Amino acid sequence: MHFCKPEIAIIDTLYIMEKKRVYTFGNGKAEGRADMKNLLGGKGANLAEMNLIGVPVPPGFTITTEVCSEYYELGKDKVVELLQDEVKKAIVNVEHLMNSQFGDIANPLLVSVRSGARASMPGMMDTILNLGLNDEVVEGLTRKTNNPRFAWDSYRRFVQMYGDVVLGMKPTNKEDIDPFEEIIEEVKAAKGVKLDNELEVEDLKQLVAQFKAAVKERTGKDFPTNAYEQLWGAICAVFDSWMNERAILYRKMEGIPAEWGTAVSVQAMVFGNMGNTSATGVCFSRDAGSGEDVFNGEYLINAQGEDVVAGIRTPQQITKAGSKIWAERATISEEERVAKYPSMEEAMPEIYKELDAIQTKLENHYHDMQDMEFTVQEGKLWFLQTRNGKRTGAAMVKIAVDLLKQGMIDEKTALNRIEPNKLDELLHPVFDKAALKKAKVLVKGLPASPGAATGQIVFFADDAAAWYKAGKKVVLVRIETSPEDLAGMAAAEGILTARGGMTSHAAVVARGMGKCCISGAGALIIDYKKKTMEVDGKVFKEGDYISINGTTGQVFEGQIPTQDPELTGDFNELMKLADKYTKMSVRTNADTPGDAQQARAFGAVGIGLCRTEHMFFEGEKIKAMREMILAEDTDARQKALGKLLPFQQADFEGIFRAMAGYPVTVRLLDPPLHEFVPHDPKGQQELADAMGVDVSVVAQRVDALHESNPMLGHRGCRLGNTYPEITEMQTRAILGAALQLKKEGVTTYPEIMVPLTGILHEFLEQEKIIRTTASQLFKETNDSIEYKVGTMIEIPRAALTANRIASAAEFFSFGTNDLTQMTFGYSRDDIASFLPIYLEKKILKFDPFLVLDQNGVGQLVRMATEKGRTIRPDLKCGICGEHGGEPSSVKFCHRVGLNYVSCSPFRVPIARVAAAQAAIEE
Amino acid sequence: MHFCKPEIAIIDTLYIMEKKRVYTFGNGKAEGRADMKNLLGGKGANLAEMNLIGVPVPPGFTITTEVCSEYYELGKDKVVELLQDEVKKAIVNVEHLMNSQFGDIANPLLVSVRSGARASMPGMMDTILNLGLNDEVVEGLTRKTNNPRFAWDSYRRFVQMYGDVVLGMKPTNKEDIDPFEEIIEEVKAAKGVKLDNELEVEDLKQLVAQFKAAVKERTGKDFPTNAYEQLWGAICAVFDSWMNERAILYRKMEGIPAEWGTAVSVQAMVFGNMGNTSATGVCFSRDAGSGEDVFNGEYLINAQGEDVVAGIRTPQQITKAGSKIWAERATISEEERVAKYPSMEEAMPEIYKELDAIQTKLENHYHDMQDMEFTVQEGKLWFLQTRNGKRTGAAMVKIAVDLLKQGMIDEKTALNRIEPNKLDELLHPVFDKAALKKAKVLVKGLPASPGAATGQIVFFADDAAAWYKAGKKVVLVRIETSPEDLAGMAAAEGILTARGGMTSHAAVVARGMGKCCISGAGALIIDYKKKTMEVDGKVFKEGDYISINGTTGQVFEGQIPTQDPELTGDFNELMKLADKYTKMSVRTNADTPGDAQQARAFGAVGIGLCRTEHMFFEGEKIKAMREMILAEDTDARQKALGKLLPFQQADFEGIFRAMAGYPVTVRLLDPPLHEFVPHDPKGQQELADAMGVDVSVVAQRVDALHESNPMLGHRGCRLGNTYPEITEMQTRAILGAALQLKKEGVTTYPEIMVPLTGILHEFLEQEKIIRTTASQLFKETNDSIEYKVGTMIEIPRAALTANRIASAAEFFSFGTNDLTQMTFGYSRDDIASFLPIYLEKKILKFDPFLVLDQNGVGQLVRMATEKGRTIRPDLKCGICGEHGGEPSSVKFCHRVGLNYVSCSPFRVPIARVAAAQAAIEE
Repeated sequence: MHFCKPEIAIIDTLYIMEKKRVYTFGNGKAEGRADMKNLLGGKGANLAEMNLIGVPVPPGFTITTEVCSEYYELGKDKVVELLQDEVKKAIVNVEHLMNSQFGDIANPLLVSVRSGARASMPGMMDTILNLGLNDEVVEGLTRKTNNPRFAWDSYRRFVQMYGDVVLGMKPTNKEDIDPFEEIIEEVKAAKGVKLDNELEVEDLKQLVAQFKAAVKERTGKDFPTNAYEQLWGAICAVFDSWMNERAILYRKMEGIPAEWGTAVSVQAMVFGNMGNTSATGVCFSRDAGSGEDVFNGEYLINAQGEDVVAGIRTPQQITKAGSKIWAERATISEEERVAKYPSMEEAMPEIYKELDAIQTKLENHYHDMQDMEFTVQEGKLWFLQTRNGKRTGAAMVKIAVDLLKQGMIDEKTALNRIEPNKLDELLHPVFDKAALKKAKVLVKGLPASPGAATGQIVFFADDAAAWYKAGKKVVLVRIETSPEDLAGMAAAEGILTARGGMTSHAAVVARGMGKCCISGAGALIIDYKKKTMEVDGKVFKEGDYISINGTTGQVFEGQIPTQDPELTGDFNELMKLADKYTKMSVRTNADTPGDAQQARAFGAVGIGLCRTEHMFFEGEKIKAMREMILAEDTDARQKALGKLLPFQQADFEGIFRAMAGYPVTVRLLDPPLHEFVPHDPKGQQELADAMGVDVSVVAQRVDALHESNPMLGHRGCRLGNTYPEITEMQTRAILGAALQLKKEGVTTYPEIMVPLTGILHEFLEQEKIIRTTASQLFKETNDSIEYKVGTMIEIPRAALTANRIASAAEFFSFGTNDLTQMTFGYSRDDIASFLPIYLEKKILKFDPFLVLDQNGVGQLVRMATEKGRTIRPDLKCGICGEHGGEPSSVKFCHRVGLNYVSCSPFRVPIARVAAAQAAIEE
Repeated sequence: MHFCKPEIAIIDTLYIMEKKRVYTFGNGKAEGRADMKNLLGGKGANLAEMNLIGVPVPPGFTITTEVCSEYYELGKDKVVELLQDEVKKAIVNVEHLMNSQFGDIANPLLVSVRSGARASMPGMMDTILNLGLNDEVVEGLTRKTNNPRFAWDSYRRFVQMYGDVVLGMKPTNKEDIDPFEEIIEEVKAAKGVKLDNELEVEDLKQLVAQFKAAVKERTGKDFPTNAYEQLWGAICAVFDSWMNERAILYRKMEGIPAEWGTAVSVQAMVFGNMGNTSATGVCFSRDAGSGEDVFNGEYLINAQGEDVVAGIRTPQQITKAGSKIWAERATISEEERVAKYPSMEEAMPEIYKELDAIQTKLENHYHDMQDMEFTVQEGKLWFLQTRNGKRTGAAMVKIAVDLLKQGMIDEKTALNRIEPNKLDELLHPVFDKAALKKAKVLVKGLPASPGAATGQIVFFADDAAAWYKAGKKVVLVRIETSPEDLAGMAAAEGILTARGGMTSHAAVVARGMGKCCISGAGALIIDYKKKTMEVDGKVFKEGDYISINGTTGQVFEGQIPTQDPELTGDFNELMKLADKYTKMSVRTNADTPGDAQQARAFGAVGIGLCRTEHMFFEGEKIKAMREMILAEDTDARQKALGKLLPFQQADFEGIFRAMAGYPVTVRLLDPPLHEFVPHDPKGQQELADAMGVDVSVVAQRVDALHESNPMLGHRGCRLGNTYPEITEMQTRAILGAALQLKKEGVTTYPEIMVPLTGILHEFLEQEKIIRTTASQLFKETNDSIEYKVGTMIEIPRAALTANRIASAAEFFSFGTNDLTQMTFGYSRDDIASFLPIYLEKKILKFDPFLVLDQNGVGQLVRMATEKGRTIRPDLKCGICGEHGGEPSSVKFCHRVGLNYVSCSPFRVPIARVAAAQAAIEE
């Protein structure tokens, strides 16, 4: 129907002419609303809403996201034409409200121009501030603020920003230098200064002149002086930025359609440095440190926002009460306080009243503690920003519980207010705050396990144990740790290593113990022979004191007193609330009765992973273990295993007792055997003597255990399938312990877990050994006990063939550490060579060993759960990797339908809250 | 409707009464047919069919698979009752046809009882021979055969078999000893002999007596003497065996339903040792060695089947022509031949005529060369077995092409007759057969790369190269090889290593080169310092001759002449036929122009994997490479890369030229950098001197490159993303070479492949570098060329997120070597510690590095192809792992819909045939 075309064109044109493209806001009115994000972008919708609830924000207007699409369909000129009238009208409205004029010299209106898409795209698109300045207007600003340095600094910043963003002066290649920065460097060099703020007014004027010359040289055009010309340039630049390379890439990553477009918000600039009736400050509706329900904050008269935080002037308190407490702490007399540092409540009582009323309104509106920025310009209060305030872990818990009690939020909301990871702060010792301020940071490493510790340096695990026995507090300092160091790690207050990442041996074990640890402090030079640790030329000897903060990764010189954590009533209420909503249960990864008890105290309802290998490192056990490994035949191996059996059984009895009444999943021997044998000549000689063989025999066997890629080598059930007698011994120890406890009247639910299954038949072979051994044991003891046999799912192939494996396995436990290693092809131990660069380049958004990769590894977890349950609908599935205590991963586990997560004892409360949140989100 | 029940019961009973349960066969008649496998099992249906086409097989009958189900529903007694009449009738029929009587002493009929399910379950269920024997009948058999030893040996075997299988004497636990074997050992020990056949008639009689006593002791019952009692026992035992542990496990593995059941075939035994009108032999309808269309075979008069192969008597030829050729070779005169070794054609002309007619009939019926076993019992010819004959690779090709030409089979069938792997025999040198017979095997290793080689021992790669230049033929003998040995491997006739598996460096590289290789000959003791190789105490020095057979893994002392392969016209016709049907194309993995040419000659239509790292090991290149790796900063790295660029470009020019007109996929640098640096002090010193730095600097950098699990470490595109300048240089070299060839008028289709992608963003970063570099290069040269950028899919995560990756990658190439490593969590280099045990225990059915694991790894290949094509429907997908040349894997690739497979040059013909077969099977 070709004749339709012209008609459509007419309709289109009419539509185009009539459509509303600009939404104004200001003075308590707005054409938009909070729910118009799609049209006005997040920022535009929020600015409109603030007006509607009566918060005084600088007036302005938002150009819709639809215009962005028109911009790419119709072109720049057409869109400017379409917007012309509406924008002009909106500017006039702002001029009216701000009592100033756009482009006026005497009383200039300056504006900001910002992008704002439907979804937040932080840093992806550009912003221009102070638009409206030129050589004359800057003089007007100088007069109004009586601050030429400020005016010219604002101007040179505007020229640079505008030049970069609108006029395309910013080099596309990151490595090339910004021409403006080059000029600044030249000017500073000529003047012999190093910092930007050492430049004086005349220098700033020179910068502006040179900037403009550079613009002329590069673009062939003069820098625009007309305010409207500047404005149109900026608006179009925002639309252009929607299609810049960074933004396209970001959208691709986040799955944001290009059609969404960006809105443009234009808003009046306000200034707190226009004399003594102007001011600027930040305030909080509750205390961000303690969570107490008291309004607080700081402000400065005749100042810009930066001044409050810059530390040049001492900021004053907002409330009188706050001011008094502050003065007391600073030992300032009441007279001096009132004279020099009056609170806003005292100095600007009317403004304070308005501020207090609005902060209350905002908290009531957002139902959360607000962190607000405001400016008073010539006696008029403007809110620049309000957002939910950052807070400490303690404040987070208190605020959530208080808001619930105050009826401001419901239970689900209270739970959702908890950032589970921040609970960690409540569970570990912290440094005394006053002492911490005076402490000197020596070096930073990775915050491998949270908490604070202080003690004397020792370099060897056995020294740590010995000093501990002698009543000393020590910090174990190592290049890296290995399973042999376990006892020493347990004895130390904290652990510091020079190598290794967040999932190194030291990190994983320390987190399991709830012990403070810093790993990978690469700047440390550790000399085991001399027993010294060197940082930046400074040498520390064994016995010297250091303090470490595992939450931040900071290492301090000397002793810093620590405070033990104290779990408040609020915390306990929160945990009860979590249990009310959660559907998954939370177990713990624990290898010792102590860990099991700790986890139980934190609310764990079972052990999801009890590793047996850690048990083999103490005294007699390691000797027998080594004899077993180096045995030449099955007989010798069985003999050595016979020695290990009573030790293992005793270990399991302790653990079962600590977890009485709850299930305990015991994993059979997993690590490659070479981890247990001595690699040094001395150790080999000792072992040879003990075994009555030549040292060369030992050396040869140790050598034969060497593997190119031990992670992918002879370990897991590959051990149990090549040396079935190991599985037999471990089965006897596990079920023997359970039978013993049964006699004592203790209920146990042993679950025997086969590690590293990749093939159904691997599992079947192991299962057969376990069931046969159990039958024999039951016959021998004339008693029996219920037990389950299941497997780790940690090999990609196991997940892919989970339906086969579930035909035999009674439960699945996802070992997401290994599963991540194999799904990504990353060795945890070697990842340091590229992970930092990958994170920096955003190739990876996070370390997949810390946060479960839901797209890849998670896909396997989901697949295995689903496939497994097609065969065995009631298949019990859990996760026992490090991810079991990471909130986003815990939530994923809930969505996949796992029955439980298992994590280290100190992560149990975190997992409980995350699990509850996941259930609520559902 | 409760009143229905009795009615149904009546109908059931009637049905039960009327159903046919036994199908007889014999004398050219049969109640069954070939297509009744479901009812009669494979064996029963085949026996029926043989009768119907007029082949004289010993008569008998088959009890249906339905009876097996009844057996488990109704119980043993009921089933025996139901079968009673039919079985008796069928036995009478056999007695009649065999002119003998079941249980008769004078003229006994003996039978065999065998299981036979719908699907073949080899070795899973039991067979009983010589049923019908007892203390009296054995005497009758003695008289009839005039061979008491044979009769008693048959009897004692029957008692043992029957005791084990029917009377349950066989221990269920494998490790326990069979009580009959125990008795045999005792009797032999008492007599002081070692082998069973050293026992005399009296000993055999003693064995029978003791066996029966053991049965009585263990079962409390006498061994059954009644033939029918024996028969019922045997029939029920076959049904019982359907539910034995082995069979259940096997069905579970193979997905065979238990309801299928097994049939039971009972068949008359015949004997070729009943005097001079009896005989036994084997014959072939064509020559199994050459494939020539001549009937041939061997026989012996008055003998059992075993005698023909046992080598005690010299077997005689079937045909007169064959007999004459045989005599000539054995330098036996015509007189002697006719007297002592007459052919069957001469000695039994009537029987021969019948035999010849039937062999022709059988070949015409089965349309393939037949391997037949026959027995003549007292002048009557019986066929015991016919099957498609095993043949050499050459015969396989000739027979298929001949049958096609003779119109006996069509093209598709001809192609399906090829076992692709056997083509290998045709492509490599072989030892001279006569010389080989005299050669002494020193040791056996793994048959890592097929072919035969003979030469002087050298132990170092540079010696190999030097000796080769001096015109000598050498075999390179190493503990294991590394990339540094490449030039030496290329210069050698063959490679022999003491360590490493079928996918060790030596094995993979040698297969790529089409060079003979034996790996993992563990019995070799190699001393590099002394330049000696020791086997069983015998020492070989550098320069001594050895010969190796890479097809069998045998190492021989001294020189054995080799014959070069000659590709026949038949071979070429077959290849043309393959191309006619195939849908996938076949590319090659080649890193040098020579390999590329070789592969092209074998029909490769492109390179699917050109590894660039192999290029870096020669002379100047390795120096520059090492400088690059040890560079302290980007500048130094770029400088070193600048030196490498011209070398790389020249390499690519050579390869592109060799593959002119076809696509060449070049993989960017992949291996961990430590593979390129010297690990010995001497090498490090040399490098330090060349770089002008202290040796400690080199040692430290080399040390820093060490990784715990290099396979999962800093390699693949992780290198290109941390050192982008490597990718830049390689892009310049690849596209620079293509531009150069364009000038020369040579067409190229370069495809740049990013290795080890696991995350979309890894690929995007690399792609950006490649595209930017290409644009720059095109600008600089004022020329351009089409190219593609794609990726290896070899990380499980890449397969799982293939839809994302396909949004940017233009092609996928499955690197199934690494994909197998990570999907299974197996390190190829370390698998030897458990793989043999896994294969022995049948945990793995095959080495997954040789045969693609379709359930696990293949699932990922399929998933990635499907996911990739949802985003990019025309996504080109190929495979370039070792599996690309393995027939079952190639077929899988076809089914998944890959566009091509890529394999080492000498596997190209194999892949072509496998691909054609896959297309035909579809």
